[in-house]
Amino acid sequence: MKLLLKIMFDGENFSGFQAQPGLRTVQGELTEKLSNLFAFPVMVTGCSRTDSGVHAFGFCVAVHPRDEEKARENWCRIPVEKVAVAANNRMPRDISVAGAFYVSDDFHPRYSVVKKEYIYKMWDEAVMSPFMRGRALHLRHKVTDEGLLKMKSAAAHFVGEHDFAAFMAAGSKIKDTVRHVYGTDVYRDAEGLICFSVSADGFLYNMVRIMTGTLIDVACGKISADSITEIINSKNRAAAGETVPPDGLYLNKVFYPFDIDWQAE
Amino acid sequence: MKLLLKIMFDGENFSGFQAQPGLRTVQGELTEKLSNLFAFPVMVTGCSRTDSGVHAFGFCVAVHPRDEEKARENWCRIPVEKVAVAANNRMPRDISVAGAFYVSDDFHPRYSVVKKEYIYKMWDEAVMSPFMRGRALHLRHKVTDEGLLKMKSAAAHFVGEHDFAAFMAAGSKIKDTVRHVYGTDVYRDAEGLICFSVSADGFLYNMVRIMTGTLIDVACGKISADSITEIINSKNRAAAGETVPPDGLYLNKVFYPFDIDWQAE
Repeated sequence: MKLLLKIMFDGENFSGFQAQPGLRTVQGELTEKLSNLFAFPVMVTGCSRTDSGVHAFGFCVAVHPRDEEKARENWCRIPVEKVAVAANNRMPRDISVAGAFYVSDDFHPRYSVVKKEYIYKMWDEAVMSPFMRGRALHLRHKVTDEGLLKMKSAAAHFVGEHDFAAFMAAGSKIKDTVRHVYGTDVYRDAEGLICFSVSADGFLYNMVRIMTGTLIDVACGKISADSITEIINSKNRAAAGETVPPDGLYLNKVFYPFDIDWQAE
Repeated sequence: MKLLLKIMFDGENFSGFQAQPGLRTVQGELTEKLSNLFAFPVMVTGCSRTDSGVHAFGFCVAVHPRDEEKARENWCRIPVEKVAVAANNRMPRDISVAGAFYVSDDFHPRYSVVKKEYIYKMWDEAVMSPFMRGRALHLRHKVTDEGLLKMKSAAAHFVGEHDFAAFMAAGSKIKDTVRHVYGTDVYRDAEGLICFSVSADGFLYNMVRIMTGTLIDVACGKISADSITEIINSKNRAAAGETVPPDGLYLNKVFYPFDIDWQAE
């Protein structure tokens, strides 16, 4: 039995998700704090390897005892609906546990993912809000309603199964660069931030950040909305826009083949 | 001639506005960074002495050369509409300059204030968002629409000229505890936060934080909305609610006897 947890984290002060010696990581913090909570060493596996500075609203991790014998037992002595509250009492201020759910031993939070959704947030006021720093990209120029519609129409060209080689960080060793983008949107949210949302069966390294950089070129009028298709077809990283910083990037939601009825009080 | 600047700051990592030896303060940072910008020592005077952890959207500071002779000259060599951008290039990430405006030598950013508006923000989801920590008070229980209306109706009892002694931190040395509250509101904002806004000709020490603690007692049903009048009339600090933490408190706006046409590019 494994425990699946839904977590939110502010990525600003983490060197990404994956544990690395001597660095503060989300996996490192969770492993330490949850081992303390359960009073035995646990393994924590994540749904994604997010980079340094990237945030998450609906990140999923699987937790189970490091001891294999123990892992086969009914080891979680905390009622599942109380796990979030108990865990939050020990979490650092930049991680929150939003819910818990039991999954079987063969469940893997990364390999079982069928769809992931990211959101990239941009702030286009002349003056950066100190409350947005590290949490949104500061665009120096105001995006007009027309510019926003152009970004939205450009983003729609990403939808479908395409070879996204042009939208992968140079030097990445991945060979199969075909991904299926299920949906995209560009909108201004309640806080006035410009949001680019994209869901796909998987993402190449820096894919959302390069897509966003390319959409900003569309907003500025540097390229047309329709040129997205040419850029995809070029399979050439140099044809796409810049890789924007991690600050505005949020892993919003991961989807599994079944619905999860998150337990929390 | 003085330069009036409108600034925003995230108060979390400041020991309040007022400069204090050995502590990181908003006034200390501004004095250092603006002295570097102008290349001579400047004096920075604030519109309010905000406490440690308190935030601001529309805080005002007056800036002038420390040297009195120089202060009488036309000392600001940066065009007024470019001051914000130039200053922001040197500001730490938790302070932004939103605009600048010239005022006369006899202007004092605190004594000239005719009205100030504060907002106190509360987050009432079961799980605290890591993005709200330090920026809103976490209420453990969801506030219903009915609870929200009760808070709003309770807050309306603060309006008018009253002796607010019951809403002043015990031990404060202020003798004249009469203040004129011009308006209050309680609403849920676009982000889902419960906001209490209050404007007055002045505020006693911890006044907004004690008012908020009292409104939370109303939301919980601990006291009725109408009991606010009795609490005011008691002039007894013990009759009011707790002093809530500074985290959710924002100085939203200060008003001067004239309109300010803030200059910024």
